[in-house]
Formats: sequence, structure tokens, C-alpha cells
Amino acid sequence: MANDRLRYQMSALPVTIFAHLLVVSIATLVLYWLVKLREGFAFKSTLAIKIFNLHPLLTILGFIIFAGEAIITYKAIPVKRKALKLIHLILHSIALATGILGVYAVFKFHNELSYPHMCTLHSWIGLSTICLFGLQFLLGFVTFLFPGAQPAARAKFAPWHVFFGVVIFFMAIVTAETGLSEKFIFQNLQHGQEALMVNFIGILILLFGIFVGLTSVLSISIK
Amino acid sequence: MANDRLRYQMSALPVTIFAHLLVVSIATLVLYWLVKLREGFAFKSTLAIKIFNLHPLLTILGFIIFAGEAIITYKAIPVKRKALKLIHLILHSIALATGILGVYAVFKFHNELSYPHMCTLHSWIGLSTICLFGLQFLLGFVTFLFPGAQPAARAKFAPWHVFFGVVIFFMAIVTAETGLSEKFIFQNLQHGQEALMVNFIGILILLFGIFVGLTSVLSISIK
Repeated sequence: MANDRLRYQMSALPVTIFAHLLVVSIATLVLYWLVKLREGFAFKSTLAIKIFNLHPLLTILGFIIFAGEAIITYKAIPVKRKALKLIHLILHSIALATGILGVYAVFKFHNELSYPHMCTLHSWIGLSTICLFGLQFLLGFVTFLFPGAQPAARAKFAPWHVFFGVVIFFMAIVTAETGLSEKFIFQNLQHGQEALMVNFIGILILLFGIFVGLTSVLSISIK
Repeated sequence: MANDRLRYQMSALPVTIFAHLLVVSIATLVLYWLVKLREGFAFKSTLAIKIFNLHPLLTILGFIIFAGEAIITYKAIPVKRKALKLIHLILHSIALATGILGVYAVFKFHNELSYPHMCTLHSWIGLSTICLFGLQFLLGFVTFLFPGAQPAARAKFAPWHVFFGVVIFFMAIVTAETGLSEKFIFQNLQHGQEALMVNFIGILILLFGIFVGLTSVLSISIK
């Protein structure tokens, strides 16, 4: 949506800075929540909930944060286009890997306790998000990197790559918010420290989503 | 985000038609869910849950559907700009009224059963959405309708009106998805007809959000 740069008379720089600050806040709160208020995390444990806890850890601190950072890269780092594309690719690769690992963790947890899979809206939207993200990654890779499409085809595909990128990121935010809401009701939280913690994580993730979306319509601040 | 019209080489018309079909599907499923699978709805009843049921009815069939239709108006109806503005205003007025009434219904329900207010992420994001919607409504009204700002100020404000409009609508979608997720866990649904019904309503609302967002970046199909 970079064509809007002519209309939104505002630099993207302060927005990207605020987005980075949100990342630090989200990471801090999620770690405090999982380590101090909950049971911590582990890939193998007799305490199955530790395996579950890897799910919010990897999907929020991994998938959402790295995918968001990958989107704002183009407006945040003063390097050449080729380097930007590489950073965009690396950040998205980390997002995809941690996202898949996060989904694996929750399936493992469900298996260990013989819980049924894929019942909730959270799981439906979440798995759709990961699958669409993988497809978008693949299409972006073959169009813009290797082997790379013809310039005319790239120019035609580029706005759709941006639009679907923002849509898939929006779906990831919805997934996080529904996951946190489920956890809140499931744990019978109401007031108290953990309830506030879960809600504030949700609000910060929502703000992160809005600020990442905003960078996609703002002008490039660094030439 | 209408400036993108030069880049997205696709008419908005089929997208708006699909969005209208989604509206019909969502309305049908929500009514079937609340009337056939749940207790129905009433403003006064000895069965308090009937009052609660007004909440999803008014916020989904009222707020979300009318706000979405108001956004796509500009790409969907072949009438003059002045008439479009009036339709946009009327649809948003209905959205605001039903949204406020929907929030009132859930507060009334909580009061009747002495439940605490504003504990969940759903309630935090939901009330923020209604407040921001009211503010956006007011700013839009005084800038574009009465008394109306100077042309230069309008041109500067217009893209922000569109951006924040889409953001607030995105927040409404997040609110609906978290509300449905809460209800799912709270009712201990897992499989069965109601579980599928709630999840499909959630998926259709998400798709409606994506299609409304898509119309905002596409070209105007009717001159």
C-alpha cells in the first residue's frame, strides 16, 4: 500500500520506533507471565502444561513479533533494497519456523493428555494463518527472489503480496487475541495479577498489529 | 486507501457482492444459533440469558454488519457522491445505535446476575471500539458534513478517516472473535452442532472483515 505515501503526510520512523518499543513490552510481559505466574516451559516434561506454555511463547514471541518486524523492515532500516529483501526473508523464515514449532507444541500437549484437536475457533483461524503464511512465503520467494518473475509480473504481484501479507498478519493477531481469551476463561481468571497480565498482553499485541498496519500505508522515511 | 486504485487492477464490484452474500450467511447463522440452539432474546425476561443473547444479536447483526456495509458503500452503490455520503452516515448511525444497545444489554445481564463488569479482553477491546467509533463518527460528521472543514483540511483528513475507519472495524472483528471464543469455552462446547455453528459464524465474520478491507484498497467500479 506504499502508493499512499503521497497522501499520508507523516514519516514512518516514529511509528516503527513505537512498534519496536511494543515488541520489548510484549516480550517482557509474556516471559513474566509464563515463567513467574505460570509453570515455565519445556519440550519434554512430566508436567504437560510446560509443553503447552511453549505455544504462546513461540507463537507470540516468535511468529507474531518476527512477522511484524519483517513487515516494518522496509520502513525501519536505512540499507539498500537488496539487503532489505534479505532481512525481510530472514525475519519471515524465523517467524515461519517458530510458528510451526508453536503449533507442534500444542498438538504434542493435546496428544499427551488425549485432548481432542482442532475444536476451537482459535485453532481453525490459527492453522489457516500458518498455512496461508507458508503459501505467501513460497509465492513471495519464487516471484521476488529465486528464480524471480519478469519485472512486469513482479509489479503486478507486489501490491497483492503487501495486501495478503497484511491480511495474514491481521489473522495472526486475531488468533492471538482468541487464544488469550480462551486461556482467560479456561483458567477462570477474573481479577488479579494474571488476569490483568493476559489482558495487557492482548492490548499490546493489538496495538502492535495497528502500528505494523500503519507503517504499511506510510511513506518510507529513509531514502 | 483509495489511492491504491491505480495499482490493484481489479474491480471492487465482485468483492462487494461477495461481502453482501457473507452478510446474508452471517445473519442467517446468528439467528439460527440464538433462536434455535439457544434461548432466544428479550429485553425483559425472568430468564436472564435471553437478555445476554441480545448482545451478540445487536453487535454482530447490528454493529459489525452495518459498519461493514457503510465502509463498502462507496464501492457498491451507483449513486452520486452526496447520496453516498448520506447512506454512509445512515448506515454508521444504525451501527452506532445497535452497538451501544448491544453493550447496554450485556451490562444489564451482568447487573441482573451480579456478575462483575469489564474483566475480559473482549470487554476491554469491545468498549474501546465503541468509544473510538463514536469519536470517529463525530470527527467525520463535523469535518465532512456539518459544519464541514475547508477543502484543504478535508483532503488532509480524508486518508486518516479511511485508515482509522478500517482500524476500528478491524477492532470490531477482533472483539467478535474473542467474544465467540469466550462463549465457546464458557459453554464447554467441543464438537456438535452449536460448536460448529459458533466457529462458522467466527470464520464468516473474519472473511467479511477481509472483504470489507479489500474494497477499501480497490478501485471504484461505478463512475
